[in-house]
Amino acid sequence: MTTFTLHGQAVSRGVAIGRAVLAAASRVDVAHYFIAPEQVSDEMARLRRARDTVIDDLQRLRHGLAHDGVGAHAELAALLEVHLMLLQDEQLQEGVKHWVSERHYNAEWALTAQLEVVARQFDEMEDPYLRERRADLEQVVERMLRVLQGAPSPLAHAPTPSAEGEALVLVAHDLSPADMLHFKHGVFAGFVTDVGGRTSHTAIVARSLEIPAVVGVRNASQWVQQDDLVIIDGDAGVLIVNPTPMMLAEYGYKQRQGEVEREKLTRIKNTPAVTLDGQRIELLANIELPEDTLPALAVGTVGVGLFRTEFLFMGRGGHLPDEEEQYDAYRRAVEGMHGLPVTIRTVDVGADKPLDHHRRDEHLNPALGLRAIRWSLAEPAMFLTQLRAILRAAAHGRVNILIPMVAHLREIRQVHTMLAKAREQLDHRGAVYGPVRLGVMIEVPAAALAVRMFLPHVDFVSIGTNDLIQYALAIDRVDESVAHLYDPLHPAVLRMVADTIAAAREAGKPVSVCGEMAGDVTLTRLLLGLGLRSFSMHPTQILPVKQQVLRSDTRKLQAWAQQVVASDEPAALLVG
Amino acid sequence: MTTFTLHGQAVSRGVAIGRAVLAAASRVDVAHYFIAPEQVSDEMARLRRARDTVIDDLQRLRHGLAHDGVGAHAELAALLEVHLMLLQDEQLQEGVKHWVSERHYNAEWALTAQLEVVARQFDEMEDPYLRERRADLEQVVERMLRVLQGAPSPLAHAPTPSAEGEALVLVAHDLSPADMLHFKHGVFAGFVTDVGGRTSHTAIVARSLEIPAVVGVRNASQWVQQDDLVIIDGDAGVLIVNPTPMMLAEYGYKQRQGEVEREKLTRIKNTPAVTLDGQRIELLANIELPEDTLPALAVGTVGVGLFRTEFLFMGRGGHLPDEEEQYDAYRRAVEGMHGLPVTIRTVDVGADKPLDHHRRDEHLNPALGLRAIRWSLAEPAMFLTQLRAILRAAAHGRVNILIPMVAHLREIRQVHTMLAKAREQLDHRGAVYGPVRLGVMIEVPAAALAVRMFLPHVDFVSIGTNDLIQYALAIDRVDESVAHLYDPLHPAVLRMVADTIAAAREAGKPVSVCGEMAGDVTLTRLLLGLGLRSFSMHPTQILPVKQQVLRSDTRKLQAWAQQVVASDEPAALLVG
Repeated sequence: MTTFTLHGQAVSRGVAIGRAVLAAASRVDVAHYFIAPEQVSDEMARLRRARDTVIDDLQRLRHGLAHDGVGAHAELAALLEVHLMLLQDEQLQEGVKHWVSERHYNAEWALTAQLEVVARQFDEMEDPYLRERRADLEQVVERMLRVLQGAPSPLAHAPTPSAEGEALVLVAHDLSPADMLHFKHGVFAGFVTDVGGRTSHTAIVARSLEIPAVVGVRNASQWVQQDDLVIIDGDAGVLIVNPTPMMLAEYGYKQRQGEVEREKLTRIKNTPAVTLDGQRIELLANIELPEDTLPALAVGTVGVGLFRTEFLFMGRGGHLPDEEEQYDAYRRAVEGMHGLPVTIRTVDVGADKPLDHHRRDEHLNPALGLRAIRWSLAEPAMFLTQLRAILRAAAHGRVNILIPMVAHLREIRQVHTMLAKAREQLDHRGAVYGPVRLGVMIEVPAAALAVRMFLPHVDFVSIGTNDLIQYALAIDRVDESVAHLYDPLHPAVLRMVADTIAAAREAGKPVSVCGEMAGDVTLTRLLLGLGLRSFSMHPTQILPVKQQVLRSDTRKLQAWAQQVVASDEPAALLVG
Repeated sequence: MTTFTLHGQAVSRGVAIGRAVLAAASRVDVAHYFIAPEQVSDEMARLRRARDTVIDDLQRLRHGLAHDGVGAHAELAALLEVHLMLLQDEQLQEGVKHWVSERHYNAEWALTAQLEVVARQFDEMEDPYLRERRADLEQVVERMLRVLQGAPSPLAHAPTPSAEGEALVLVAHDLSPADMLHFKHGVFAGFVTDVGGRTSHTAIVARSLEIPAVVGVRNASQWVQQDDLVIIDGDAGVLIVNPTPMMLAEYGYKQRQGEVEREKLTRIKNTPAVTLDGQRIELLANIELPEDTLPALAVGTVGVGLFRTEFLFMGRGGHLPDEEEQYDAYRRAVEGMHGLPVTIRTVDVGADKPLDHHRRDEHLNPALGLRAIRWSLAEPAMFLTQLRAILRAAAHGRVNILIPMVAHLREIRQVHTMLAKAREQLDHRGAVYGPVRLGVMIEVPAAALAVRMFLPHVDFVSIGTNDLIQYALAIDRVDESVAHLYDPLHPAVLRMVADTIAAAREAGKPVSVCGEMAGDVTLTRLLLGLGLRSFSMHPTQILPVKQQVLRSDTRKLQAWAQQVVASDEPAALLVG
């Protein structure tokens, strides 16, 4: 057997060694034919039955998860929720109806035709998280196609661990959240998919389960044979097929080291995040859905530093979420944190999102267009709805409002005006609401450079390093052709981060970092040295970052950090 | 007669008062029909004859201009050159041939079908100058259609000024450079078009001729009647139809004031640009074509601060310009400046330009993608060709090379390596070349913030304020939905400009500004106060800026400028 190596994206750390289990190719072959006009209502009925079956299946799976755990299962439940939302999406239903009743396509053809239409809208979205929701849509449609054709689920007959206790590794083209329920009983020690990126749900669930994973390994499911011995290196993004005995020994050692490390991490779960010199560090969670508060609490977080609200605005076929729906989501997150603070960011998508897709082609550079607070201020009715929902949720716990993509002082003044107006509207109808603190994201270079102008007008600031780096370097980080130029350690980036932290501290206003830099353990000491005392990150990064915090002495880091920032050499040489 | 006002874009300053002359609607009605297969060769012959006729016409017009003037006529000649290039474009010819021979479209239909295909590619371009070249293509095609159908040119029978000496104002849907030759003998005192923007050729030629113009006045050619009395306010972008006597008196006064002002300006053409305190200021020209050196010299410029080379790369249907063609263009500009320095910027378009349009959809944010130096470094053969052509042109005069969109020190190092390699290649074949100085554009925020890191590795820097503002504020300035957020006086922008100037001066390296800020007379004093001694702008701005320079005392401006930059208030309040 030949040894060979395949490369993909490292999305969940650690080493797994085991036998490959190949999931059946996930694509269903679909027959396309025209139906007779008199068959339209029968065909629509077939579609409705298929959809109801899938909804029932997913709801059953979701209920099974409801009370049996924290962390990973909460993530899975949330993803199933997204699938249920997509199934009920009006645009999908209306479109399918059109193909069947106007064009006389058969049910399967109508579904795939409409999938193409909606999928193109997802492709045009700028947010990488939202863009990858295209895969969810494909999986939902595929599930309906399987029901329509009476085909079994690709993992219907999941294997059980072999008697010899040899681990199993799943290799698939792609995995849906429903497929991933098979991880629930720990059947698989790792997995590999042909498609997907850092924000695919495969990646998200793998990180929550702390199971090594490599995604985007093109054609892995074709290169790897059933029962091949494979090693997944989730740190390097590598899959080794038929490893040599020496490779096995080396990775076996690395795997045991990793286990020891993880063991250590779980022991510090309840240890307060305090440095050697007694500085208390706030380690907060970034969450995407109300249910994500569970995995956040499971790792001992002390609050939510960034609750993204985009999930409420996506895949809705033209409709904005109303106040009740938003209030319900925010309240669930606030209550879920049991009195710990929750920072809710107002919607951070743009005029190019699907509900407005007809205007899409006017905007050649959506990242530089009408999005985030710009879009909110251009659509006051929508913005007021969101503000009222947040204010009402604030009656149930500690809530902060965070405004994305601010660049001008007048935008902050406009937000204050809108907040006053939202309170007035609530007073007018006698609704109950609570106090909120107002903060802004520092993610546009102009905001970082003018932060001293903003500080008197806000209660706190949060540095969004992902966008800050993107705009400062003029690089779209999802554009592969320039990905090699993305550099969080560019002296310009470090100076803006350092200066924002310093300015906020001088002004006595809280400052945190909520981009990927906050969860990167190789940067924890640098950020501590620059005076940062609040970090917000994906829950899985909280314990590794805490470990760095516990080992650090900020008094010793300060001079070094200033030196790194002041240096005119690329900082990658200085940080190690 | 009712008085009414129409609004558009102010593209050429001044006031014109006169009678409206309406140009015939510029669209030709075209018959679409299928030809018989045996007619294909006849139809292709018809097309060739029409093309040859148009080429002859344009070349005759162009030769008529060749030696009779500076400024405006040189601009017109250059635009005619663009039309001739488009007529000879392979993609247009190949496409038309395809429609006729494969689809059996008649000649007119084939032309309009291919126009649609190519026009879409122009629309996708990010550079506003290149994007507006779509209008040129439409005009070329229309000219061919007129020849095919035997229709007269819309301005074939141009009016002559009335005996009473009443001025005439041209109102048209759009104007081609050939149409604009009618301005040559000063027939029109101003003009208005339904379409076009700041970089449409109508605007460019109007500015060169110093004739007031308002473009993009939607439906002006339908609202205005033949012989209506109209006022064009080229400062405010307003067209007043059937003005009241009071309006006429007011604008008559404004018009005379403007004439006095222009008269004053021409008097300082040969005055050296020296401030009241004896500081010599360098006023350079931005040019787009080799012929533009004429209008630049006509206003007494002391060199070219920015020679854009994009014209060589546009509308070529998949082919890159070869070394001889580039050398010829650069040499003509260098010789045209008679020993004054010429700064040639390497190509500043991206992977999204038409020659690569199949990959277009991969790049969601072209402004943040593989363009300018990134694209050049990704295509070393193309870059080496351009460098060799520039080095050879440097044997004919003083040449600087300017690199666009630098963000990382390693990019500068790579350029040095490529320059050494280009020289080596020229040595190898014994070609003659000259010395060049190497500079970088400071137009990405990271470059402005890390300029001290770059300075030891370059001979000079040039601040590109247009892109710098765009990236610093995360605003696409051609996206109308966020145009209101574009602000050259944002404190963050002023700080980056001020700091770049200060850093370059400390390092003893020349620094200039070549974005629109350099040509904005309301900002001249601020930039002088910040220590700027070199400005590069459109030739028409040189005299107005010189007038500001002659009236300024930099010693008095310094403290005030520092105060404006240090202020945390929006600077628009402080600059007047």
